[in-house]
Amino acid sequence: MVQPKAINLAGQPLGGGRMPAICAPLVGRTREQLLAEAASVAAKRPDLLEWRVDFYDGIADTAEVVRLAGSIKAAAGGIPLLFTRRSSREGGEPIALLEPQVISLCGAVCASGHVAFVDYEMGNTPDEVCEMRERSRAAGVQLVLSFHDFKGTPPLGELQEKFALAEQLGADVAKVAVMPRDMEDVLTLLAATLHASRTLPIPVVSMSMGGAGAVTRLAGGLFGSALSFAVGQQASAPGQWPIDALETALALLRKASGT
Amino acid sequence: MVQPKAINLAGQPLGGGRMPAICAPLVGRTREQLLAEAASVAAKRPDLLEWRVDFYDGIADTAEVVRLAGSIKAAAGGIPLLFTRRSSREGGEPIALLEPQVISLCGAVCASGHVAFVDYEMGNTPDEVCEMRERSRAAGVQLVLSFHDFKGTPPLGELQEKFALAEQLGADVAKVAVMPRDMEDVLTLLAATLHASRTLPIPVVSMSMGGAGAVTRLAGGLFGSALSFAVGQQASAPGQWPIDALETALALLRKASGT
Repeated sequence: MVQPKAINLAGQPLGGGRMPAICAPLVGRTREQLLAEAASVAAKRPDLLEWRVDFYDGIADTAEVVRLAGSIKAAAGGIPLLFTRRSSREGGEPIALLEPQVISLCGAVCASGHVAFVDYEMGNTPDEVCEMRERSRAAGVQLVLSFHDFKGTPPLGELQEKFALAEQLGADVAKVAVMPRDMEDVLTLLAATLHASRTLPIPVVSMSMGGAGAVTRLAGGLFGSALSFAVGQQASAPGQWPIDALETALALLRKASGT
Repeated sequence: MVQPKAINLAGQPLGGGRMPAICAPLVGRTREQLLAEAASVAAKRPDLLEWRVDFYDGIADTAEVVRLAGSIKAAAGGIPLLFTRRSSREGGEPIALLEPQVISLCGAVCASGHVAFVDYEMGNTPDEVCEMRERSRAAGVQLVLSFHDFKGTPPLGELQEKFALAEQLGADVAKVAVMPRDMEDVLTLLAATLHASRTLPIPVVSMSMGGAGAVTRLAGGLFGSALSFAVGQQASAPGQWPIDALETALALLRKASGT
């Protein structure tokens, strides 16, 4: 058994090792929207900013995406960036790129040095995941391998396999996000997270989405989840808390729990 | 399957039907301490006050206990009372009374009309539980049948049996409080609570104690627990939140959950 662990960056635990640290998404569609959003959200001091590039209208122009990543980094006031193209299959916005182009784009952004983490979906082909893994590693960027199910919650064993698969494929961080159909599903997600955080050598991140799962965005850290996604300006998935509400509730929960 | 339910009193759900409602314990050792504590704690507006009579120095004087129950009721500003003798076997203070005397005492307090609920431990003999059941029912006082384990958390099946046993023995409310040895135990308690709240026709109350279980005092309502014990002036068990902190966190959690 290993201890649940925080996400590390340059030898320091993200968010000072608080479980969970807080990540806020950026979902602007234009350069102007994104820079305004980055400045506004960074002022709320999340531990990480996720640029959800599938929302960005200019996603097909790699050079512009790389430049914009640099501008967002400059606007982020030292808060590290996670670069994410969420596929429409797993809840993201439709984009015009084919998967090889996505890997090229993510690879170029990694190589630019503007981002600390890149998200890639473990549901892609093993070759695709392997190529993304090589590109992120060569750039010194940590790879989050993720799985999303917006329709339901797989059984406990399947959830455990998703976490384990991320680690087998070379992830630096394993992420699983699922939709509960009832409160039993919420307990299943927490049980799988606890198991993964106790058995895998990498940090794990999880959430049960929607209103029924919102409790996992608050309490997930107690069960091993290293990161909670919260709303700076606009939500990127259902059930996310506003940053300030989450910070307040987390502080009260930590005090009551003695953690 | 039935829906998780609030505790009802005179046809109205306690706490306006919020899950959980909040109960604050009174643990004074003298009449003066108890009346000061009741006034101070009532000002924080919990939904229920629990007089833990095992802390009271005068417990052996039934007439005085009944008078004091009336004085506490008067000091409580309309907040209903739960009368509880917690046995030392289940985490309470040592007292000089034998069990038949405890039943007499609880019966006299029920008959006085000063309390709305009485707690009795389901671990007593069936005859004792039956007698308490008859006395509380005759007085129109609701019976909370409770089980406490301060050393650990029984397996899921045993916890489910405790909830079911309370209902079989005629409880109006079933209460289970256990100590987690790890976070898996916390999930077990929540799973048993959810199952009981879905299968039993009476309200259920549960908590995982201590710091590790503190999250259940906040989130238990989502899994069917109808009542959370919180600190007005002094805690009666490990892991209880201060009332104001619990109210703040509950309001944020309810908003995020859309409940």
